[in-house]
Amino acid sequence: MEVYNHTYTLRNCRFVIDYQKILENVNIIVDNGKIKDIGKDIEGDEIDCSNYVVTPGFINSHTHTGMIFLRGYHDDSELMTWLEKMWEYEKKATKEILRLSSEISVLEMLSSGTTGFVDMYFNPEDIKELTEKYGIRAAAGYTFINNLFDPEEVSKKQLGLSKTGLFYPIVNVHSLYTSDKKTLEIANDIANEQDTWINIHLAETRKEIYETKLKYGKFPIEYLTDLNIKNYQGVHLGWVASWEIEYLKNARSVTHCPTSNMKLATAGAFPFYEISEKGINVTLGTDGASSNNSLDIIREMKNAVLLQRHSYWDTRIKALHVFKAATYNGYKLLGINGGLIDKNQVADFALFDASELYPLKKDRILSHIVYFATSENVKKVIISNKIINKEEIKENIKTLAKKLNKIIPD
Amino acid sequence: MEVYNHTYTLRNCRFVIDYQKILENVNIIVDNGKIKDIGKDIEGDEIDCSNYVVTPGFINSHTHTGMIFLRGYHDDSELMTWLEKMWEYEKKATKEILRLSSEISVLEMLSSGTTGFVDMYFNPEDIKELTEKYGIRAAAGYTFINNLFDPEEVSKKQLGLSKTGLFYPIVNVHSLYTSDKKTLEIANDIANEQDTWINIHLAETRKEIYETKLKYGKFPIEYLTDLNIKNYQGVHLGWVASWEIEYLKNARSVTHCPTSNMKLATAGAFPFYEISEKGINVTLGTDGASSNNSLDIIREMKNAVLLQRHSYWDTRIKALHVFKAATYNGYKLLGINGGLIDKNQVADFALFDASELYPLKKDRILSHIVYFATSENVKKVIISNKIINKEEIKENIKTLAKKLNKIIPD
Repeated sequence: MEVYNHTYTLRNCRFVIDYQKILENVNIIVDNGKIKDIGKDIEGDEIDCSNYVVTPGFINSHTHTGMIFLRGYHDDSELMTWLEKMWEYEKKATKEILRLSSEISVLEMLSSGTTGFVDMYFNPEDIKELTEKYGIRAAAGYTFINNLFDPEEVSKKQLGLSKTGLFYPIVNVHSLYTSDKKTLEIANDIANEQDTWINIHLAETRKEIYETKLKYGKFPIEYLTDLNIKNYQGVHLGWVASWEIEYLKNARSVTHCPTSNMKLATAGAFPFYEISEKGINVTLGTDGASSNNSLDIIREMKNAVLLQRHSYWDTRIKALHVFKAATYNGYKLLGINGGLIDKNQVADFALFDASELYPLKKDRILSHIVYFATSENVKKVIISNKIINKEEIKENIKTLAKKLNKIIPD
Repeated sequence: MEVYNHTYTLRNCRFVIDYQKILENVNIIVDNGKIKDIGKDIEGDEIDCSNYVVTPGFINSHTHTGMIFLRGYHDDSELMTWLEKMWEYEKKATKEILRLSSEISVLEMLSSGTTGFVDMYFNPEDIKELTEKYGIRAAAGYTFINNLFDPEEVSKKQLGLSKTGLFYPIVNVHSLYTSDKKTLEIANDIANEQDTWINIHLAETRKEIYETKLKYGKFPIEYLTDLNIKNYQGVHLGWVASWEIEYLKNARSVTHCPTSNMKLATAGAFPFYEISEKGINVTLGTDGASSNNSLDIIREMKNAVLLQRHSYWDTRIKALHVFKAATYNGYKLLGINGGLIDKNQVADFALFDASELYPLKKDRILSHIVYFATSENVKKVIISNKIINKEEIKENIKTLAKKLNKIIPD
């Protein structure tokens, strides 16, 4: 990892693309972790980008980094069976396994050009350390889940989490079916106190819809709205009625995890187009390594288009929608000026090898990034003042995976 | 590319997996392009496989290799619009562009461990040459398509195509909506004469179903059956009624192209489980670079599971189904004893880097290959007596892509 605590220039970028534009052969000047200028000028150290397609860094808006150790474990079951198997095996996880899993997740995400993520698991202190170690941005927090932890205990630990330049404490609530009304109210109070948002799995399965309606007389989104929970990130939303979308205007963001939904056969389809049309912020997430099983946000963009088109029998959701969701909208969720390659935006980039995206034509670049590229094509990732090379990431992953293989429970 | 015209041993393979078994730390002896033995013995040159997971080579049962030049061109349209754009742009393709596109396709497929493929396009002579150049197996032929070529001309050229150890002439018929009854009869006669099969896009869209019913009073599969066409490979089959599945027993194979179907919003779902249950041979295809846009059969295995589970709201289709479809069933379609790592089977393998598939445990290997792996994890591909390294493939792709970028039409 190279650290640039000063001005540098990404010189002669072959293509620069964000959701608003595509530029050709331009320089990007970075100063103090922010974009200072785009054009023909050069300042400070130079990085030759004549063979790179430069995109904003990607935000993986929903994952469970600590779950790498569960990858491939009973992953051919349906959601509730799988979840029970997970919970059983999770008991075997040591702190070391969780920390190692989270670190491998961070490296896998960097490997696909991910510069920030939202994590829901039980080790946010590890995540905070990892943001310092690798320079990646993360929102994470302790998780309210009634069958595992006492809400008062979670609250105490959560209030000990503080914000840094890279780390944002959030209040994780596993779901409505694992958290009662009291827990939700506690979580909401803490979110208000910490000036942050609630991150919650929402309207994921028909079972959840049914049970919420049976218990509270309301559908999940309706119920959250009635509790006056406003600053929340709803994840999954496979089973949303058209009239419920209006309620989502309360949400900070909603997050689509297409691969996980399809793999777990939850069947519902996140109403991407209808939600976007209402001006609600749609972001993308890979979900964890046990349900996806990849943490590759580039694959996720493609899979979002695939799920949407297959479900709605039309091509309304285009490459641009998912690219925006994974870049600009992700930064919006995190509350950072980023996801655009413009002056004063954070200098977070993924650098794709242009010689691997062919036929290399300006009007096909977006299609290549979304439909053709893989994380293999990302050669460098830049977050603010740190530049990380792919080879370095891959070497680190191999070393840590070897450690994990040695201590993984049966 | 290393050529071994003699005996060699894949020594100490970390894992060996085919759809019937998983072995650990075994040797595979290859003799004269076939598997001679599996066990502890060693013969001839040794290849250290202690860090490899060895799978059978994969068969991409449906693609259009010549279409790489169309990758990313108007690919956010619906099927019929897209098809018309394709046909318009295809007119600009020179022979050189087609040959270059096919060669890049072959290299991309090798890169993901593909050892054989079925091609439908206009340059089968190129494919034949490429099988000799790279050692890959291919089935290809001229394509009957009424709006582009005179069937008599196609017939003449087709009869000039001969079989080799690696190349199998097949009779391509674009579809029922582009080929009239007379063309189908000519194609069938030629297939019989060449002792080969007809490869045809079938029951892909509702429009095709409607038009076939309107014109012939029959649904597509029913119509083919009535014409007494028996040895055929039906591709897509998104719109099949349950009672039509019985007719598919006539087919040599049926091929599922999940990514292409989803991306083009054709909406129907290939009835994978029901067809497999009838003992009909199900194979997998990526389709071409203009509709997928990747030719990566590993991604395709995962996407097949995703489409199936999302469409049928259950997890009946498992990793094993798609792995079998992409290996054993693919070889069955080609009529080759392969797709199993057993004595007397062809020695076609993909070698995955075991250190990149973690947690590395025997009971998770299949899941990793299908749900986690990417072509990046394939480090070597072996076809019979030829061993090709990933780096070599990647260098070749870069050189050819550079050429393509220079001559690509506007």
